[in-house]
Amino acid sequence: MDDKKIIEDKQISEFVIGEVSQGFFLIRSVESRTASNNNKYLDFTLADKTGEINAKLWHCTEKDEAKYIANKLVKVRGNVTQWQGRLQYIIEKVRLTTEDDNLKVENFVPSAPYPAEEMYSEVLKYVGLIKNSEINMLVNILLEENKDRLIYYPAAQKNHHSYRSGLLYHITSMLKVGEGLSKVYEFINLDLLYAGIILHDIAKLFEMDSSELGIVSDYTMEGNLLGHIVQGIKMIERVASEIEMNEETAILLQHMILSHHNEPEFGSPKRPMIPEAELLHHIDTIDARMFDMKKNLDNINEGDFSDRVWLLHNRKIYKPKV
Amino acid sequence: MDDKKIIEDKQISEFVIGEVSQGFFLIRSVESRTASNNNKYLDFTLADKTGEINAKLWHCTEKDEAKYIANKLVKVRGNVTQWQGRLQYIIEKVRLTTEDDNLKVENFVPSAPYPAEEMYSEVLKYVGLIKNSEINMLVNILLEENKDRLIYYPAAQKNHHSYRSGLLYHITSMLKVGEGLSKVYEFINLDLLYAGIILHDIAKLFEMDSSELGIVSDYTMEGNLLGHIVQGIKMIERVASEIEMNEETAILLQHMILSHHNEPEFGSPKRPMIPEAELLHHIDTIDARMFDMKKNLDNINEGDFSDRVWLLHNRKIYKPKV
Amino acid sequence: MDDKKIIEDKQISEFVIGEVSQGFFLIRSVESRTASNNNKYLDFTLADKTGEINAKLWHCTEKDEAKYIANKLVKVRGNVTQWQGRLQYIIEKVRLTTEDDNLKVENFVPSAPYPAEEMYSEVLKYVGLIKNSEINMLVNILLEENKDRLIYYPAAQKNHHSYRSGLLYHITSMLKVGEGLSKVYEFINLDLLYAGIILHDIAKLFEMDSSELGIVSDYTMEGNLLGHIVQGIKMIERVASEIEMNEETAILLQHMILSHHNEPEFGSPKRPMIPEAELLHHIDTIDARMFDMKKNLDNINEGDFSDRVWLLHNRKIYKPKV
Amino acid sequence: MDDKKIIEDKQISEFVIGEVSQGFFLIRSVESRTASNNNKYLDFTLADKTGEINAKLWHCTEKDEAKYIANKLVKVRGNVTQWQGRLQYIIEKVRLTTEDDNLKVENFVPSAPYPAEEMYSEVLKYVGLIKNSEINMLVNILLEENKDRLIYYPAAQKNHHSYRSGLLYHITSMLKVGEGLSKVYEFINLDLLYAGIILHDIAKLFEMDSSELGIVSDYTMEGNLLGHIVQGIKMIERVASEIEMNEETAILLQHMILSHHNEPEFGSPKRPMIPEAELLHHIDTIDARMFDMKKNLDNINEGDFSDRVWLLHNRKIYKPKV
Amino acid sequence: MDDKKIIEDKQISEFVIGEVSQGFFLIRSVESRTASNNNKYLDFTLADKTGEINAKLWHCTEKDEAKYIANKLVKVRGNVTQWQGRLQYIIEKVRLTTEDDNLKVENFVPSAPYPAEEMYSEVLKYVGLIKNSEINMLVNILLEENKDRLIYYPAAQKNHHSYRSGLLYHITSMLKVGEGLSKVYEFINLDLLYAGIILHDIAKLFEMDSSELGIVSDYTMEGNLLGHIVQGIKMIERVASEIEMNEETAILLQHMILSHHNEPEFGSPKRPMIPEAELLHHIDTIDARMFDMKKNLDNINEGDFSDRVWLLHNRKIYKPKV
Amino acid sequence: MDDKKIIEDKQISEFVIGEVSQGFFLIRSVESRTASNNNKYLDFTLADKTGEINAKLWHCTEKDEAKYIANKLVKVRGNVTQWQGRLQYIIEKVRLTTEDDNLKVENFVPSAPYPAEEMYSEVLKYVGLIKNSEINMLVNILLEENKDRLIYYPAAQKNHHSYRSGLLYHITSMLKVGEGLSKVYEFINLDLLYAGIILHDIAKLFEMDSSELGIVSDYTMEGNLLGHIVQGIKMIERVASEIEMNEETAILLQHMILSHHNEPEFGSPKRPMIPEAELLHHIDTIDARMFDMKKNLDNINEGDFSDRVWLLHNRKIYKPKV
Repeated sequence: MDDKKIIEDKQISEFVIGEVSQGFFLIRSVESRTASNNNKYLDFTLADKTGEINAKLWHCTEKDEAKYIANKLVKVRGNVTQWQGRLQYIIEKVRLTTEDDNLKVENFVPSAPYPAEEMYSEVLKYVGLIKNSEINMLVNILLEENKDRLIYYPAAQKNHHSYRSGLLYHITSMLKVGEGLSKVYEFINLDLLYAGIILHDIAKLFEMDSSELGIVSDYTMEGNLLGHIVQGIKMIERVASEIEMNEETAILLQHMILSHHNEPEFGSPKRPMIPEAELLHHIDTIDARMFDMKKNLDNINEGDFSDRVWLLHNRKIYKPKV
Repeated sequence: MDDKKIIEDKQISEFVIGEVSQGFFLIRSVESRTASNNNKYLDFTLADKTGEINAKLWHCTEKDEAKYIANKLVKVRGNVTQWQGRLQYIIEKVRLTTEDDNLKVENFVPSAPYPAEEMYSEVLKYVGLIKNSEINMLVNILLEENKDRLIYYPAAQKNHHSYRSGLLYHITSMLKVGEGLSKVYEFINLDLLYAGIILHDIAKLFEMDSSELGIVSDYTMEGNLLGHIVQGIKMIERVASEIEMNEETAILLQHMILSHHNEPEFGSPKRPMIPEAELLHHIDTIDARMFDMKKNLDNINEGDFSDRVWLLHNRKIYKPKV
Repeated sequence: MDDKKIIEDKQISEFVIGEVSQGFFLIRSVESRTASNNNKYLDFTLADKTGEINAKLWHCTEKDEAKYIANKLVKVRGNVTQWQGRLQYIIEKVRLTTEDDNLKVENFVPSAPYPAEEMYSEVLKYVGLIKNSEINMLVNILLEENKDRLIYYPAAQKNHHSYRSGLLYHITSMLKVGEGLSKVYEFINLDLLYAGIILHDIAKLFEMDSSELGIVSDYTMEGNLLGHIVQGIKMIERVASEIEMNEETAILLQHMILSHHNEPEFGSPKRPMIPEAELLHHIDTIDARMFDMKKNLDNINEGDFSDRVWLLHNRKIYKPKV
Repeated sequence: MDDKKIIEDKQISEFVIGEVSQGFFLIRSVESRTASNNNKYLDFTLADKTGEINAKLWHCTEKDEAKYIANKLVKVRGNVTQWQGRLQYIIEKVRLTTEDDNLKVENFVPSAPYPAEEMYSEVLKYVGLIKNSEINMLVNILLEENKDRLIYYPAAQKNHHSYRSGLLYHITSMLKVGEGLSKVYEFINLDLLYAGIILHDIAKLFEMDSSELGIVSDYTMEGNLLGHIVQGIKMIERVASEIEMNEETAILLQHMILSHHNEPEFGSPKRPMIPEAELLHHIDTIDARMFDMKKNLDNINEGDFSDRVWLLHNRKIYKPKV
Repeated sequence: MDDKKIIEDKQISEFVIGEVSQGFFLIRSVESRTASNNNKYLDFTLADKTGEINAKLWHCTEKDEAKYIANKLVKVRGNVTQWQGRLQYIIEKVRLTTEDDNLKVENFVPSAPYPAEEMYSEVLKYVGLIKNSEINMLVNILLEENKDRLIYYPAAQKNHHSYRSGLLYHITSMLKVGEGLSKVYEFINLDLLYAGIILHDIAKLFEMDSSELGIVSDYTMEGNLLGHIVQGIKMIERVASEIEMNEETAILLQHMILSHHNEPEFGSPKRPMIPEAELLHHIDTIDARMFDMKKNLDNINEGDFSDRVWLLHNRKIYKPKV
Repeated sequence: MDDKKIIEDKQISEFVIGEVSQGFFLIRSVESRTASNNNKYLDFTLADKTGEINAKLWHCTEKDEAKYIANKLVKVRGNVTQWQGRLQYIIEKVRLTTEDDNLKVENFVPSAPYPAEEMYSEVLKYVGLIKNSEINMLVNILLEENKDRLIYYPAAQKNHHSYRSGLLYHITSMLKVGEGLSKVYEFINLDLLYAGIILHDIAKLFEMDSSELGIVSDYTMEGNLLGHIVQGIKMIERVASEIEMNEETAILLQHMILSHHNEPEFGSPKRPMIPEAELLHHIDTIDARMFDMKKNLDNINEGDFSDRVWLLHNRKIYKPKV
C-alpha cells in the first residue's frame, strides 16, 4: 500500500471491504488489550454521523494509549476488512485532529438542532429586554463568565436535552414559552422571569463534568455534595455582592433558583412563592416533557406506542393517526 | 310614611339611619324564624357591590318563604334602623326582579373580568381554527348544546375560577396559552389541543348545581358518583356516536379528558400518552395557579406575604418590591 | 421413510430418538431463520400437555411463515433426533388443524378448571336472579354480545386468572362469594351486586388482545389510552341508552365499575359510595388473592415457603403442616 | 308533696312539666358544681331509650359525688320543671339500681342487635366445628376465661361496633362470612380460620377499659404501649404453653393475629402469609365497612347522600332509589 | 394615694385586693381599646415568674401606645382590684425599665437552664478543640459576628428549644453528645463535627425575628424565601471567601448544613454523604426529641400519659413508675 | 506421591503450580457433579484469609457428599495444577477438622474486630450496672440461655454487622453510646436503656438460621411468620413470668423491643413512648449507619466517592481530603 496515494475522505457508510479508506471519526470508546503475541493494541469503536465501526491499532505505544482516548476526534487511514461477518477497520495511520482540519463537532455527536452561537445570541436578545439594570448586569456577567462552557454543555447526563448545547437549547425554548405566557398573564415581572429562566440551571456547568462533545463523564465533587441548585445560589450571591445588588432582588433571584424543582422531594426545599417562580417551574417542566415526548415519537410510526419511558413516569407514548 | 313618595334607588353604602331607602339587592342568605309573638318572619342578608346589610321581613307568609330564597335578586323598599350598633333594614315592600328591571347580575356577584358573550365568541374563534371536520363538528355541537349553562357556570365550587362565568374565563385563557405554546412546540396537533382545552371541564356543567349567579349549591348525584372526567367522556361518546366520528379520534379526545389531572390520586387513572394531553394538563395547572396567585397578591401590599393559601399547597405568597 | 405408513398419534413425553412420531401440538413460539446454506427455515417450540420440544421445518416458504404462527395448533409428522443432548423434532409434514380434528384447546394451554360453557351457564343462572328488569336486560345484552370472547378470554395478561376462560372463572367464583355475603348483609341489593360482578371486568375483552388460546399478546390502543374501567362505562352507557334505562340505575352500575379498584392509585378515581360497590371491590380482591395463594401453594410442600410473589406484595407464602 | 304516694315509672318522653315523675335512667354525664350559695350540687345528664334530660341534685354530699358517677344506672324521683325553655328534673330521691330492679342495660345504651348470650352460644357452635383438638382447647380456654368481659365489650372506642356487645356481634358476623367463603375456597383450613376470627380482637378486652355499658373510657397502659395485636399474641403464648400446644400451630395462630391488619402502617408488621390469615383480614374489613355503611344509610332517605364519613376515607355514602 | 409613699416591690402571686402594689413585669400582650366614654385605654396582660394579671392604663396617650408594647419590661405601680371574680390591676404609674434597674430578663420569660454567657464559653471551649486552622477561624468569625443575637435567640418559633437562649442550649448539648459519640466512632473527623454542630442552625438568627426575650414574632422575608439552610450556606460562603478557605473544606461544611435535615421532604435536598454529616443529623434529632419528651414528662405524674404531642408524631408520652 | 511425606501447611497465596500442598480451608461452596466417565466428583471453592481456589475431589462417595458441605472447615492435601489459566487444586486427602486442630474460625470468615468472649464480658459489665434487681435478673437469664448462639451470630443476613459475632459487636458499641448519651440526658433510666440495648435484637438468634461461621442460610419459619420483634417480646414474656416480674416493668421492656424500629413501615406498630425507647431507636440507627459508612469508606481513597450504597438510601459516600 502506498501511503502517499491521494485518497478521498469517506464516511463509514461508504466503506467497502478490501479497500483503503480514510476520514475523520469520533472515538466513541477505546480499550487497550493484549494480543496472543503479548503485544498491546488499541481496540476502538469509531463513529461518524453515518454509523459505527470496530477498528484496531496493532502495536500501540504507551503514548498512543494516552493520546487516543474516548471522545476525541481523529483522522484515520486504514484497510477495511471483514471479521466474523462484521466490518473491521485495520488502522494504518492515525492522528488527533487539529483546528486546521476545520471540523464541526456537531457532525460527530448528537447536538441541539440550532448552532450554539445562534442560540447564545438569542439569549442575549432576551437579556436586552431586562429593564432592571442590576438584574441585567448580573445576568450579563454570569453569561459572559460562563459562555465557553455554555456553548457546548448538555442540560443533563442522561435526562432531557442530554446532548451537545442542550442546555442552551433548553434555555432558548423556555424563553420563548415565557414570552408567550407573559402575554396572557400580564402581571408577571418579565425581568425576573427571563433572568430566572437563563440562570435556573446555570450551575449545571459546575455540577457535571462534560467534554466539549457534550458528553458528561461524571458529577463533580461539589455537584454531588451540594447540587446545581445550591451552587447556582452561590454564583448569584458572589456576583450580587460584587455589583452590590439590592438585597431583595438577589434573594428573589435565589428563590427562583431554589424553588424551580417545585417540590422538596425533587430538590426544592421551598416551593415557589412568587408567580414568576411558579411559572419558571412549569416552563421548565413543559420543555423537558415536550423534549422527551418528541424524542420518543420521532422513533415510532403513527398508530404505534413507544416502549415505556422511564423519564415520563414509565409511560408509553402514542403517536396518533389523526 | 307615604308609599307613593318617589324615592331614588340607593346602594347599601349610601344608607342613612332613619331614612326610607330603596334599591336592588341580592339575597345572599335567608332564614325563616319565629318571633316571640309566634309570628314568622324572614331574616335576610342582602348584598350589592357596595356591601351587605341585615334585613327583616316581618309577618311573612308561606308564599314569601318559597319565593324569597338565596341567590335571587330583589327590589326592596324599607326603613333603615339601627340595632345593637349595626344597621338593620326593615322591609316595607319587596318583589322579585324581572327582565324589565334590566339588571346585570355581574353587578351583584363576583364574576369573570370579561363579559360572558364576548368570551364565548372568543372560544368560537378558536373552534374555527380546528381543521379536522369531525373534531370541529363535535366541539360545536357540545358548545351549542351547553351554551346556556356555559355562560354563567363557575369552574369550581370553591377552588380557582369559582365565580360567575369562571369556566368560560378559564377556557379562554387556556386557549391563548395553548396558542403561544404551539409556536414553540410546532409538532403539536392544534385540533386536538384546542378541542381538549374547550372540553376538558365541560362536564362540570353537570357535576355541580350552579345558580345563574355562578354560585354552586352542591354536587349532583352523577357528579358525586362519577365525576366530571367520566361524565365528559360519556358526553363525547354520545356525540361521537351521533356524528359517527372516527373511533381513534374519539378515543384520543376521551383520553385527553381522562388524563388531564395527570395523576391517579388527582382523578386521572391514565397519565397523558400524547403530547397534546400532556400540554393540556400543564396549561390547566398554570392557569389555575396564576389565578390563585394573582387573587392573593391583589389583596396585599408590596413587601408583604399573604396568609397561607390552602389551594397552593399551604404556601404564603410574596409580593416583591422590585 | 414411507409417508403412507400408518402411525399412531403420540404425546411429546412418549417420543423416542430415531423414530418417526406424529401428533397434535401447540406452536408456543416460532422464528424464521436463515441456515448457513442461505435457505430459510422455521424454528419452533411445540408443546402439548406433556411437555415442549424444539422442532425445525427446513426449506420453508413464505406461505409457511405466514401460516405457522405462534398460538396455532398444528398436526405434525417428523423424525425425533438428538442435538447437543436435547431432543429435536425434524418436521416432515405439517398442517394447521381443522374443526374436523375435533381438538379441545384446553388440552394444550393452561385453562380454568371448569368447562367454559358450564361456567357461562352458571353466570346466566345468576342473571336469572336479577329482578330489576332493566338491569336484567342490560346484563343479558352485554353477555350475549360478548359471549364469543368471554368463553376464552383470560382475566389478565400476567396477573391472576391469566389463562384460558380465566375471566369467566373469576366471575363465577365471585358470584358465589356474593351470594354467601348477601346472607349475612341482608340489606344488600343483589340486583346491583350480581350485575356489578358480571360487568366489572367485561371491558377487558376490549382492553387486551387475546388469542383463542387465552394468551394475551398486547393491550389494544383503546385499552392503553382509556383502560377497561372507562371502556366498561362506555359499554354500559351505550346499552343503557339503547334500552332507555332509568338514568339513576345506569349511573349506579357505572359507579360500581368505576370504583371497583377502590383507590385512585389503582385506577378508581371514585371510591365505592354504595355498599354494593364496596362489596364488589372486596369480592374482587379476595378472589384474586385466593387464586394467587392457591397457585403458589400448589407448587410447594407442607412446611415450606414459596418464593417471593410479586402479585402478593412480594410476600412469601407458607404451607402449614397443621 | 307526699313521698309515699305511689307513682308509676315513666320514660323521659312522657314527662310533663309540673308533675312528679319517677323512673330508671342512665347517668350519661355528671358534674359537681358550686351554687351561688356556696352549696355543692350535682348536675346530671340522665338518659333512657326515649331521650335525655338535665337533672339537678341540690345539696349533694361527698358520698353522693363518689356514688353517682357516669355510666351508672339510677332510680330517680323528682319534679319536672322548665328552665330557659328546656325541661329540668329536680331530683327528690335517687339511688343506685340493684340486681333486684331486674334491669336490662341494653335498654339504656346502644347495643348489638342480638342478645349477648345468644351470640356467645353461636360462637361456641363454631368452636364445636374446630376439629384440631389443640386449637379447640385453646379457643375454649380463652373464651371461658374472658366470657365476662366479652359479653359486654364493644369492638372499639369510637370506630365500628363501638357499642355494648359490639365485639361479640363483630365475631359472629365474621364467622358466618367465613363459613360462606369456605364453600368457594375449599382448600381453606377452617380450624385456623374460625380460631383466627374468634381470637383476632380478643385482646381488645385488655387494650381498652370499658364499663359494663359498653362505653370505653380510655386505653389501658398496656394497650397504649403494646396494643391488642401484641397483647393477643401474648395471651395465645401463655395458653399454648399451658396446654403444650404444637409449636407450629401456636405460631400460625399468632401469625394470624399479627397480620390481620394487613399493612405495617395499620399495625401489622407482617402481611398474611397463609390464605387463612389473608381471608381473616378481608372478612374483618368487610364486616367493619358494612357496619359503617349500614349505620350511615339508616339515617338518610333514598336519593340522598350522607355527610362525609371519616371512618370510610371521608366518603359520602349514597342511598339508591333503585 | 400618696405617690411618694415607699412601698416594696411585689410579685403577682403576692398581690392583695385593695392594696397598692408595685413591681417589675413583662408585657405579654397589650391592646389599645376605646372605653364607653370614648377615651382610649391600654389593656395589658402583665407577667412575672409567679403568674399573670390583667391590667388597665386608663386615659392613655398616643405616646403610651407606642411605648408600651408587647415583650417590653415595665415598672408599674397601681391598685389591685377585683372584677368579675378575677384580679385586676389599675395602673397608677408606669415606665419602661432601664439598665439601672438591673433586671435579668431570664426571670421574666422561659429560658434555657444555664446562663447564656456560660454556654457561650462552653461553645468556645469546643472551638478550641478544632485543629484545622481554617475551620477554627471560620467558626470563630461567625460566632463573634453573631454573638449578640446568639445570646438570646431561641432555636425555633414554636418547636423544640423555643425559648430564650434556646439555640445556644441546643448547641452545647449537641456538642457534648458529639464528644461522646466520637469516642465510640473513632474515625470521625471532630473538626468537621464540632463545626457542623455549631453552625448547623446559625442562620436561624436571620431566618426569624426574635425579640431579646427570645420570643419570635415572625419569619424574615429571606427566611421565608430561602430558609436557614440556604442562608447558612451563604454565610459560610462569604466568610470562606474572606479567609480564602480551601474550597473542599468550605464545600464539606456547606454540605453538612445542607444535609442536616436528612430528607428532602424536611428541607435537605442532599442526604448526608460523609459520616460527620450523618452524625450531625442524628445528634440534632436526638437533642430535639429528648427536649420535647422531657418537657412533656415534667408536667405529668408517674404512671400517666401526656396528651398527644404534635411535635412527636402525635404520640402520647408515658412516665414510668419503675 | 508418598502420603507419609511430611509437608508444611500452606496458605492459598503460597501455592505453587506442580507442588503438593496442604493446609486448612473453609468450604465456601461445593457442588456434586458427574464427570464424562459418569463418575461423581465434588467441585469446591475453598478459602482461607489469603484467597480462594477451585478444588476437585474425584471419585467421591455419597458419604463424602454428605460430609463435605458448605461452611465446614477441612484439612486438605493435594496437587496444585493449572486449568484454563487458573489454579486448580486436585485433592488427594481430605478430612473435616476437629477440636484438636485448634483452629480459630475468625481466621477463615469475616468477623467482628474484637474477640467474642471479650465482647460478651463487656456486655456483662454493663449488666452489672443495672440496679433494678428484676431487670438485672431477666437480662442475665436471657444472656445465659443464649450465650452459645450470641457468641457467633451475626446481626443480619445481609445488612449491617452481617458477619461472625456481629450481633455482639453491635450490642457493645450501642452500650457505649448509651453510656455517653446518659451523661447529657441525665433523666434517662439507665436500667431500662441498657436492658433495651442488650435485648432489642436478641430474638434474631431465632429469626435466622446461622452457621457457627456467622453465615445466615435462611430465616426460620417463626422468623418469617412473626419476626424478631414479636419473638423477642415472647422471650421476655416467658422469663418475666418465670421470675414473676412486676407487670409494668415487663411491659416497658416489651415496649422498647416493639418500638425500636420507630415506624410502622419498618416493623414497629408503636412508636417509642418513653425516652429510653426513643434513645434506643436512635442508638440502633446510628450504630448501623456508622458501620455501613465506615465499611464503604474503608474501600476507597480520599477524594473519591463510593458506589451507590443500597443500605444508605442509595447514597454515594464521600471520603474527604480534609
